[in-house]
Amino acid sequence: MLQALPMARIAVVGAGMMGSALCVPLADAGHDVRLIGSPLDEASILDLQRSKAHPLLGVSLPSSVRCQLAQDLGPASEEADAIVLGVSSAGVGWAARALAPVLEQRARPVLMLSKGLVFEHGLLSVLSEAFRAALPPPLRPICQPVAVCGPCIAGELARRVPTLVVFSGHESTLAHAFAAWVRTPYYRAVVHRDVVGAQVCAALKNAYALGIAFGAGLHARAGGQPGSVAMHNYEAAVFAQACLEMQQLVSRLGGDAASVLGLAGTGDLTVTCNGGRTGRFGALLGRGQTPSEATHAMQGATLECLEVLAVLDRYLAHAGAARRAELPLLSRLIEIALEGAPVELPFQDFFRG
Amino acid sequence: MLQALPMARIAVVGAGMMGSALCVPLADAGHDVRLIGSPLDEASILDLQRSKAHPLLGVSLPSSVRCQLAQDLGPASEEADAIVLGVSSAGVGWAARALAPVLEQRARPVLMLSKGLVFEHGLLSVLSEAFRAALPPPLRPICQPVAVCGPCIAGELARRVPTLVVFSGHESTLAHAFAAWVRTPYYRAVVHRDVVGAQVCAALKNAYALGIAFGAGLHARAGGQPGSVAMHNYEAAVFAQACLEMQQLVSRLGGDAASVLGLAGTGDLTVTCNGGRTGRFGALLGRGQTPSEATHAMQGATLECLEVLAVLDRYLAHAGAARRAELPLLSRLIEIALEGAPVELPFQDFFRG
Repeated sequence: MLQALPMARIAVVGAGMMGSALCVPLADAGHDVRLIGSPLDEASILDLQRSKAHPLLGVSLPSSVRCQLAQDLGPASEEADAIVLGVSSAGVGWAARALAPVLEQRARPVLMLSKGLVFEHGLLSVLSEAFRAALPPPLRPICQPVAVCGPCIAGELARRVPTLVVFSGHESTLAHAFAAWVRTPYYRAVVHRDVVGAQVCAALKNAYALGIAFGAGLHARAGGQPGSVAMHNYEAAVFAQACLEMQQLVSRLGGDAASVLGLAGTGDLTVTCNGGRTGRFGALLGRGQTPSEATHAMQGATLECLEVLAVLDRYLAHAGAARRAELPLLSRLIEIALEGAPVELPFQDFFRG
Repeated sequence: MLQALPMARIAVVGAGMMGSALCVPLADAGHDVRLIGSPLDEASILDLQRSKAHPLLGVSLPSSVRCQLAQDLGPASEEADAIVLGVSSAGVGWAARALAPVLEQRARPVLMLSKGLVFEHGLLSVLSEAFRAALPPPLRPICQPVAVCGPCIAGELARRVPTLVVFSGHESTLAHAFAAWVRTPYYRAVVHRDVVGAQVCAALKNAYALGIAFGAGLHARAGGQPGSVAMHNYEAAVFAQACLEMQQLVSRLGGDAASVLGLAGTGDLTVTCNGGRTGRFGALLGRGQTPSEATHAMQGATLECLEVLAVLDRYLAHAGAARRAELPLLSRLIEIALEGAPVELPFQDFFRG
C-alpha cells in the first residue's frame, strides 16, 4: 500500500520555482528526493549541485535533496516510487516522452504541478489530460496524474510559510497517498475530486488576475499613491466577475462550478493578485503601456497570463459569439492583452447572469 | 411610477463616510440631495455647511448637496421621495424612531447602507430586519428597505472610482428604482434578490478580513518586508476557508449560498482586505499585540470586526458546539480577537466539508 510507505523515493522532474520548492516539504517529511532538471534547467541544477542554493527561489534546498541534470532522468527516476512533474506547461510533452520508458518499465504515481490549458482538435483540455495524451497509448489508462492546484507562491513554500493546496485526481487513493507524503506542519493538501474544475481554475487565475491588476496601474497613471484609498472598488468588481466567469468556464468544460469557491478558485485568484509577474504586467498595461512595451519591460519573464489568454482566444474563436457574450471580462482581457485594445472594461455587461 | 422620476428628492440620513460618499453619485445623477447628520455627525455637518469638505472623506461634496443637522430631520425628509439610511449599525434603532413620523405621514422607499448583524431573542438577523423591527408595527409590512452590499470603499466612491455594488430587496421594483436613480458612469448597482445572503456577507466580511490580515502582521513580526514573497499563501488559505464558512452561515440564516460567489461575498471580502481599519487591526494582532493594545493603537476607531464577532460569539454560544465545529476559522477569530488567544489558526480543521 502506498499510504504505508513512511519514506518514499520521489523524483521531481523540472527544477523551476515550483518543482524545486516542493522538494522542501518532501525532504522535511523524510523522503528520499531527487530533483532532476529539464533541458532548460541546466544552469539551475549546476548551481544547486555546487551550493544547494536555488538561483530563482533565493533559498537553499535541504541538503538531502540530490540534484541531477536532464541527461540522468532515466537512471535517476527508475528507482522512484513516485514522480512529481514540475515542468512548465510547454514542457509537458517533453516530460511525457522522457518519462515514457520509465513508466513503461513500471507504472507509478505522478503528481503534476504544471498548470495551463491546451486547445487542440477543437477541444480545450486540462494539462493532466495533455500529459496523458502525450504518453504512449498503452500507458494512458494506467497513468492518471494527480494535479496540484490552489494558492501556492513557490518562494513562500520554500520558506515554509503555511500553505494549503488541493490535490485532485481521478484515483482518490493516489491523491490521498500524495497528500500523506507531502504533509508537514506547514504544507497540507486537501484531496478534491474535481480534477477538471481545479485545473481550469488554476489556469484561469492568471488570465483574470491580469484584469484585477489593471486597477493599480490606472491608479498610478492618475497620479495616485498606493494605499487604502486607490482603485480597490474597481479591483473587487473585476475579482467578483472573474469568479462568476470561472464558474461558467468550469461548468462548460465538465468541472464542478462549486470548485470555484474554495482553495482552487478564490484562494488561488487572491494569491495571484498578491504578487508576481501577472500583477506587474497588468499594472504596466493599466499605466498605459502597450502589450509589447510591457512585455519588453518584463525582460523576458514567462507570462502565463498571455499563454492562457492565447489558448482561450483560440477556444472562443471556435466556440462562437454566444460563448464570448457569456464571458465579457475574459473577452475584453484578450482584446487588451493580445490585441492592444485600451484598458477599458465592460462593467455594464458584468453580473448579467 | 418611481422609475419614471428622472430627478428625485432624496434624503440621506447619516453623514458618516458611506452616507456622505453616496451623495456624490446621487448629485451627479441630477437628484435633489439633502444630507442630514445623525446626532453624532454634528461636527461633520457644520464642516460641510461651511466648506462642503467632508472631514473624514477628505473630499468636497458636490455644491448642490444641502447639509443639515439632526434636529432638522423631520422637515428635511418630509418632502423626500426616498430615504437613504447611512447610519452606523448602532444608529439603526435611532434612525427608525426618528424616521417613523415621516414614514407614517407617507411611506416611501428606504435604501440602507448600514451593515451588521443583530442577535436578539435567540435570533440572528440582518439589519434591514432590525430596522423594520424598530419601526412602529403598522409600518413594518409596508417598509422593506433595499440593502446596499458589495465592495465599496467610501473614499473611492467619493472620488468617482468605478464601483459596482448590489442592491437587494424583497420588493425588486424598489431595488430597480434605486438602481436607476444612482446610476452614473462610475457607480452601478446590480439588483439581487437574496436580501439575507447579501447582508450576511456584508457583515461577515469584516470578521473574516481580520483573519486574512494576520498574515501581514505575522510576516512583519518574523522580520519580513512587504512584497510578493510574504505570507500570501497563508492569507489565501484563510480567504478560501472564509468563503466556505460564509456559505455555511448564509445557508443557516436562510440566504442563498450562491450569493457568496460574487460582488456581495468574494468581491466585498477582497476589497475589505485591501484597506482600512480591519486590516490594520488584524496586522497588529499578527505582530503580537493583545486585543487591548491593538485597540488602543487604533485610537478609538470603530472596529466593525469586533462588533460583528461579539454578535457572532453570542449566536454561537446559543447555537451550540456543532455549529462552532462547522466554523473553525470564525470560532478561532472570536477566541483571538475577543479573548486574547494566540494568533494560531486551526488549518488542520479547514476544508473538511
